[in-house]
Amino acid sequence: MTDAFHFDTETAVEQIADGRWRGQIAGDWNIGDNPNGGYLLSVAVQALAATLPHPDPVSTTTHFLRPGVADAPCDIEVELIRSGRTLSTARATLSQQGKTRLAVLASFGDLSESAGIDAKLQIPAPDLPDPADCVPRSGDAQGITLPILSRLDTRLHPQQALAGQAGKAEVSGWIRFIDGRESDTQSLPLFTDTFPPSPFGLLGAIGWVPTIELTVHVRRKPAPGWIAARFVTEDLQQGRMLESGALWDSQGELVAQSRQLGLVMARS
Amino acid sequence: MTDAFHFDTETAVEQIADGRWRGQIAGDWNIGDNPNGGYLLSVAVQALAATLPHPDPVSTTTHFLRPGVADAPCDIEVELIRSGRTLSTARATLSQQGKTRLAVLASFGDLSESAGIDAKLQIPAPDLPDPADCVPRSGDAQGITLPILSRLDTRLHPQQALAGQAGKAEVSGWIRFIDGRESDTQSLPLFTDTFPPSPFGLLGAIGWVPTIELTVHVRRKPAPGWIAARFVTEDLQQGRMLESGALWDSQGELVAQSRQLGLVMARS
Repeated sequence: MTDAFHFDTETAVEQIADGRWRGQIAGDWNIGDNPNGGYLLSVAVQALAATLPHPDPVSTTTHFLRPGVADAPCDIEVELIRSGRTLSTARATLSQQGKTRLAVLASFGDLSESAGIDAKLQIPAPDLPDPADCVPRSGDAQGITLPILSRLDTRLHPQQALAGQAGKAEVSGWIRFIDGRESDTQSLPLFTDTFPPSPFGLLGAIGWVPTIELTVHVRRKPAPGWIAARFVTEDLQQGRMLESGALWDSQGELVAQSRQLGLVMARS
Repeated sequence: MTDAFHFDTETAVEQIADGRWRGQIAGDWNIGDNPNGGYLLSVAVQALAATLPHPDPVSTTTHFLRPGVADAPCDIEVELIRSGRTLSTARATLSQQGKTRLAVLASFGDLSESAGIDAKLQIPAPDLPDPADCVPRSGDAQGITLPILSRLDTRLHPQQALAGQAGKAEVSGWIRFIDGRESDTQSLPLFTDTFPPSPFGLLGAIGWVPTIELTVHVRRKPAPGWIAARFVTEDLQQGRMLESGALWDSQGELVAQSRQLGLVMARS
């Protein structure tokens, strides 16, 4: 039964008016005291998916305006901008306690249909040790609690698991839902925002790295099993980092790419 | 006199009501029969810049819903979402003839101010021949006319100037305004959408590649002079390409990054 899984019950939304949806932000996806941004986005994605005629979030951009509030309801307003044959586009805002937390602009399509020529280029999957040989994520390196570990099984490359150990601004590893739910195109955006910030590998623990904006492109329906992930920051200037991420499914197929603008404010 | 330059006069907007702006889409920025998407975006950026208290478009995402109409007026609606101390966020739509053409979500900041730690990472500038030794762009390879060449001086790497010649999905070169206007943070988004699509280098001429969505991160105020550019597609699946771009100023500093989702529909 699909709705027995945490991700489904804790991102569920119900329609309360035309273009208005209500959800409940659980505290179990927190990073420290704040709900994870990818989790908040996932609730908005559910409202978008319920509105748009296409199933797959092929392009989703989120601006994070304020932290979310755990264990509190949220309202999502969705405005359809265009509904075409192969793509539909909408914008959404997620608010809590009367304040807008997220602004989203997204286009959905159908990744089971080809959109053009059959040429194929893919970034190859990283060469990772097996999940059993990777290091389960813990909050110790950041000095924070990670309630989200009750929801996600996250394994870090053993040479990147300690802050400052990688020698470059890169983090990689494996991720899946802890309760056995398989990933799908609507849960991949979450996985692009739930690893430690990649500058940890270079700079050591640097405290909370607020995300200003996250754009996720879902590229393909994932096969069942672990998702491999790699995040790299090649561009950090004046405290503004631009991190690029990619996800691969258990067959080695590239299933999503992401890019986020974040702030690296202080060394801890 | 700044307003003597084509870019300034042809992206100018005037306020016609609260949150409503009007501009005129010139035909001189066309690719074939359609206004270049980066040019349409630049008109929306002017309306955003006139609305928001911060000067620099640090994150701008545009969904291209329909082609624009050359030599016709446009209306831009801007809605401020949040105005904070260091960042302000708004969404905008650009319409012509009663139909929405572009939907934009953007955050502006001030790139003359540091936002955090002083660590610096940068993607190094590509090793390009001097502009004089590069090949001026022409529409011949695509079999289309390029009125935009009356506005932009675009020089392609000599080994990438012919479609299919590069052997990989990459295009690089130099760009500047043809009338001597210097680039600034508000004109850099244009330059991320005015080179030939990078799959040309691998697949040969492939006709028009419609952009679904373009996200531009402006990273730094550019120094005067030529802008170096490189665009690479490492991810092309089922006709959907994800192209990553970067711009460097004449001092070799990384000034912008971009990523666009486009459709590669047919070989010509």
